[in-house]
This record gives sequence, structure tokens and C-alpha cells, in this order.
Amino acid sequence: MILERRKAGDALEEFLGRIEHRTGEEVVETLDAVGRVLAEDVRAEVTLPPFDRAAMDGYAVRAEDTFGASFSSPVILNVTGSIETGENPDIEVGRGEAVRIATGAVMPAKANAVVMVEYTSEGGSEGGVVEVYRAVAPGENVSKRGEDVREGEIVLERGEVIQPHDVGLLLAVGAEEVKVAGRVRAAVAATGDEICDARLKAGVRGKVPDTNRPSIISSLKALGCDVADLGIVRDSREEMRRAFEKALDCDLVIFTGATSAGEKDIMPEILEEFGEVIAHGIAIKPGMPTALGIVDGKPVILLPGFPVACLIAFRLFAIPAIWRLQGTRIVANPGEIVKARLARRIASSTGTRTFTRVRLERRNGEFIARPMRTSGSGVLSSLVRAHGFVEVEEELEGIEEGKVVEVKLTRHLVLRS
Amino acid sequence: MILERRKAGDALEEFLGRIEHRTGEEVVETLDAVGRVLAEDVRAEVTLPPFDRAAMDGYAVRAEDTFGASFSSPVILNVTGSIETGENPDIEVGRGEAVRIATGAVMPAKANAVVMVEYTSEGGSEGGVVEVYRAVAPGENVSKRGEDVREGEIVLERGEVIQPHDVGLLLAVGAEEVKVAGRVRAAVAATGDEICDARLKAGVRGKVPDTNRPSIISSLKALGCDVADLGIVRDSREEMRRAFEKALDCDLVIFTGATSAGEKDIMPEILEEFGEVIAHGIAIKPGMPTALGIVDGKPVILLPGFPVACLIAFRLFAIPAIWRLQGTRIVANPGEIVKARLARRIASSTGTRTFTRVRLERRNGEFIARPMRTSGSGVLSSLVRAHGFVEVEEELEGIEEGKVVEVKLTRHLVLRS
Repeated sequence: MILERRKAGDALEEFLGRIEHRTGEEVVETLDAVGRVLAEDVRAEVTLPPFDRAAMDGYAVRAEDTFGASFSSPVILNVTGSIETGENPDIEVGRGEAVRIATGAVMPAKANAVVMVEYTSEGGSEGGVVEVYRAVAPGENVSKRGEDVREGEIVLERGEVIQPHDVGLLLAVGAEEVKVAGRVRAAVAATGDEICDARLKAGVRGKVPDTNRPSIISSLKALGCDVADLGIVRDSREEMRRAFEKALDCDLVIFTGATSAGEKDIMPEILEEFGEVIAHGIAIKPGMPTALGIVDGKPVILLPGFPVACLIAFRLFAIPAIWRLQGTRIVANPGEIVKARLARRIASSTGTRTFTRVRLERRNGEFIARPMRTSGSGVLSSLVRAHGFVEVEEELEGIEEGKVVEVKLTRHLVLRS
Repeated sequence: MILERRKAGDALEEFLGRIEHRTGEEVVETLDAVGRVLAEDVRAEVTLPPFDRAAMDGYAVRAEDTFGASFSSPVILNVTGSIETGENPDIEVGRGEAVRIATGAVMPAKANAVVMVEYTSEGGSEGGVVEVYRAVAPGENVSKRGEDVREGEIVLERGEVIQPHDVGLLLAVGAEEVKVAGRVRAAVAATGDEICDARLKAGVRGKVPDTNRPSIISSLKALGCDVADLGIVRDSREEMRRAFEKALDCDLVIFTGATSAGEKDIMPEILEEFGEVIAHGIAIKPGMPTALGIVDGKPVILLPGFPVACLIAFRLFAIPAIWRLQGTRIVANPGEIVKARLARRIASSTGTRTFTRVRLERRNGEFIARPMRTSGSGVLSSLVRAHGFVEVEEELEGIEEGKVVEVKLTRHLVLRS
């Protein structure tokens, strides 16, 4: 048998394209959903912030009352009350009136702006009045109801992987449960007369320990799969067929060994009895004898027995297949760096290390990083919507538009076609 | 109160240096140990391979019998038997004799080399002899007993994080259980009169949902911590003190909110009542109001209430603290890329994507990547000992010594002082 030398990238594309089987869907508690793939868009059931809030400590006012105010000719307003954060105020600001307010507190009725405390002076001989030294525009220093998330809006799309830092927002918009793709059930078997269970300390004279199977099982579990361990299968066509049949109950089938070009390397033939060999022989080193196949739309991966080859081929082919079975396509993981061109300048001050959230888009074969607002509200949803952040070191004073920057991912990067 | 503007790196170093508390140790099954930090060196209880093995299909011979062999004047040896992989042979190779042998099979006694089948021809009129066309040196095409791992040798050091692909080798060297650092128990509380549980769908009029706490709890769980959720603490000195006291039962204490410079921002003062504030005010944006402290050698982190700041500061300070409590210092994670200078040329063929395992060393402030042998034996231990691999694309023909390459990590990179 002569092996092909398919390019790894081409083989992977064809393989993924042929996986028709999916794992189904289930509803899980959001608090237990980290790492799972969303099976439907999550829409907000509420509006956030749920009310207009003060964005600064100061005085809630009618903006028009402050027009013309200055240090030399302050406007004087009657202080009719005060609102702390967390309170549910039952107060209205009339013309010529002001209400003391704390950052985050609910705006009183009829007020439409906040004068920062720095531009005021409360007191006077009998108290009860505040001098305002600066005019504010309507809406100034107020976080408007719904400027973060609006009811009905999609906060996280189908195909995204739920990150730990998504959990807070998901709960806040009413998604205490989410519909996610089912866990991938993976069947794993090792083949070969020469291997014995790795746990047989002294070994069996003549045999070598099967280290591939426990390592692959551990890798699959770390990736969130449920694993059916089919053990060691002897070099017998009948035993292999039986193992193969059993494995096909699962979503993903992984065998190690018996996949090269020798006499005993009959796994690819057995695969062909059940389904189709997509590739046998990949132009990678190590890992060349890897075979990829499809049976009833399910992915089958025959990994080489050589341990390093086995690991390399597992990473190249099994991991993308696991995502595909869950209905998504992941091209990079959280913590990884993606190079992208800045769509807009990032401002920063020297002496401060600045972290700017960005969203990534693919355009003309390169990534564009679009900085998101770095303060104000919209902060909850921006955390979830950002793909990662750009770190601006202490010694820099911003980064110019058009520069290529390193984006450290804070979520799995989904390839959407 | 005026906040400092400590440089993030300096504050982190001082903070980590002051964490004296450790989580203790426990013995766990290796199959359940992925992600845990080794609390002691793992030594091999066996030798691998456990016997001399054929590295090629061919004939086991006494090397000296083949000296002078060539295509024009082959050496003729008597074939006295055959050994398959997995067999425990009871056979000796005498002078002038050869034994048919499969890759991976146990070498017969008195044989010291394997002639590849390509350089032989078996048959003759009455059979039972083989013509050898090429001489082999003693040891040629034989994997020597112990060339991978020797009994008593350290296969994985204290402080390393157990990777899924370590599991096979650990089991094979007899480590069915490993001693690891205990899981970190982390206490988490949110502070503030203005927040309410994020799960209260409609919210409470005047309050905003506490998204930080569920997100941090999810992050901690994803990092393998056990979490004590202390809920929401009101802006009352007494309540905060009580929560703080309770939190100190854990290994790590995390509070969100009440850490800025306002009147209600009293968490740093409360921290000071119990222990020491290491830093209050870090030169990062967002995240400036973060405070770091130590109580009885345990780390205390006061995170800002602003959600993005909270996440950034958590990543910068909580994650390193979690490793420190387990007795290690991690500077990069699997999947991340580290730039390093090649200590030796990597060879590869065009048309094949080559993955070369490397070990990293730090020298004069830069990383040196030392390529490991890419074939032959030593393969199990090399998988575990490698820090990552260098990928040589199909169009390249190797990479020269001294070039800076990108190493994709396959294990957590431990900083050893």
C-alpha cells in the first residue's frame, strides 16, 4: 500500500466539510455552561441599565436650568433631596431645583443631566441651595436606560463558546439556562499485539506500554468530551471490525495504530468496509500515516501508533472535528495572540498600562481590530462582545490607526462562513 | 484617599513574593490529575523500553557476521526463526545465523543489530537462508533498553502542571498516582448597596445586577479552584469585617467593589485591619483602583467593581496568585506562542509540514529553543520533556541555527528561580 501525501490543510477542509453528524442539543444551567457551544442565539430578556443612572457624583438637574452658569456667575438651585445608589427614589426635579446624587443611583424624574460635584458648592447661610459653576448639556453624565443591552437584542451568538466572563452578563439578561450543543461522545481504541495496558508496571515481557490511549482519553476529557474507552484491540480483522462497530455508537471514532503501509496496517481497509477514507497519508512529520474517514456522516480518525505522531495528528484533526460536531468552527483559543490591523487609534497615557478591548473582523485575508469604548457604560455587553484586548505598554502613548497589533484573545475565535 | 500608581509588574512581584501560604498536598490518581501542579518529582519505577527492540523490520544478526557484505558479494546467514512484535522470544542468534524480526519486537539473545529487510533477500533453492547486502554496525536499528527512560530517573519535575499527554508516560513509568498541590479554595464576595443578584431577572428597582461575582466564580472554577461564594456584602463596616473574617478560612480572598478613593470605598481599610496592604492603585487602565494585600501569608485581592477593570485585574493578579499557592510560577500557558532562538538547525523537506519538539531555556534575557530528536526512541519521555514545538511550513526547507522561531507551547512554562 502506498500512502498519499495530502497537504494537512486541504485534508482538514475536506474532512470537516464531510462531517454531517451533530451532537444534538441540551439545555444546561448557565453557571455550568462554561466551555460549551451555544446552540442558539441568546437574546436579552431585559434592558440594561434598567433605568437612567448618574454616571458621576453630583447633582441631578434640568440641564436648561444650568445654561449660562460659570464661576463668575453661578446658577443657584434649590436642593430638594438626595439619592444614594441602590435606592428607588420617589422624587421629581422641578424647575430651579437640584437633587444630590451618587454615581450609579437612579436619576430622579424630570432631571436630564448631572452636574459633577467638582463644579458645585452647596451651602449658603441657611443651606438648602447649591451654586452651579458650569452648564451641562441634556444627557450629560447620565447612563441612559438600555445603552448597554436592549431587551430582545442578541448578546451572544449561536456557535460561540461560553467563556467564564460571559456568565455574569448572561445571568443578568435573564439567561439562567442556555441551549448548548451536546457533549461529544468519543470512542477510543488502541490496536496492536505488541502493546499492553500502560498501568502494568513491570510490563509484559515482549510488550510495550500503551501510552497513547490514556493520553488521548485525558485530552478528550480536557476538551469536554465523554469518552468510551474500548481498550486494546488485537491485530485481528475480526476483533477490529467488532471494535469499529461498537465505536460507531459514538459521535467521534479514534483508533491508534495499524494505519501505516505495512502488512498489519489494516485499519484503513476496515474503515473502508464501513464508510469512506477521505485521506490516508498526510504530508506532516511526524504523523504521516494518519488516516481520516467518514462513516454515516461521523468522523473517524486513525492515528499513528508512534506517540509524538499520535499527539500531533490528534491536535490537527481531532480538535477541529470535536468543534464541528458541536456545530462550530474554532480557529484560535483564548490566550492565543492574533495579529490584526487597528481600525482606529488607541489613546493611552505614558506610565499606565492600557488594555483596550477589540472586536476582530476578517477583511481581504487579514484581521481588522476595532477598538471598543474603554469607559462609560456598554461595559457588560462589550466584555462579552470583545474578542480580546490590545495591551499598550507603560512607555507608549497610544497606538496609531493602521498599525498591526497583537490581540490577546479572551474568547474562542469562531470562523463564520 | 489618594491612590498610588504602582507599576503592574512591580506590584505583582512584591505580591507574589509575600504569599507564604500554600495549599498543602494530596495524592490523586494520575488519570484525574490533569491540570494539577506536581508537589514532588516523579521518578520512573521502570526502565523503558524494557528490553532491546528492533527499530526496523528485518533480520536480527550479530553485526560482525555482516562486515564486508555488499550487493556484489552478499553474506549468507542461516535463518533460525522469526519474532513478531508482542512475543517473548526464547531464541539465541549464533554465529552465522539470523532471525526474522518485526519492528518493535524483542531482540533475541546474542544479536546486536538489525539488517533492514530492504537489504536482504530470503530464499535460495531449499530456503532457510538469507542474503545480506549491507553491513550493519553493532547497535544499528536497535532501540536499546532504557534509552527512553531509566529506572530512578526524574520524568516530570515538581512544579510542573500535568498535561493530558503526560498521562500515558506517567502510567507507563509506574506513577498510577501522583502527589499534587491541593486545590486552591477561593472566597469570593461582591460589595455594594447598589447591586443585586444577577439572577433576579427584572432586577430590583434602583439596583444593578452583580455580574462580577458569577463571572469570577466561573473563572475560578475553570482554573480548578474550589469556591466559597460569600454573596453580596452591604456597604457596612461590620458586614464587611464579618465577610472578611469568613473569607480568611480560604487560601485566597477576592472582593469586588469598594476599593476606589470615595467615601464608601472602605475595603482597603478593612484589609489593613486584618493584615497588610501591599499596593492600592495600580497603573493600569482599566483597573486602577485594584488593591493587593497579605493576611497571614494569604493573598487578598480587592478588585474594582467596574466589570472590565474587574476582569483585567483578575487576570493580572489572581491567576499568578493561584499558581503561587500551589507552589509554582507559570509564565505562559499551553497554546501560547513564545519567541525563541534556535540552538540548532531544524531539517525538514519541502512539501511536508514538520513539527519539531523543543525544550526552552532562558539565557541572557531571551529564550533558547533546543530541538529534540524527531524520530527514533526517547519518544515518550521527549513528549513530556518538550515545552512545545516549532512548526516548519511546507514551503520551507528547514530553519537555520540562531533564527528566532515561534514555539507553540504544549505545556505550562514554569519559571524556575
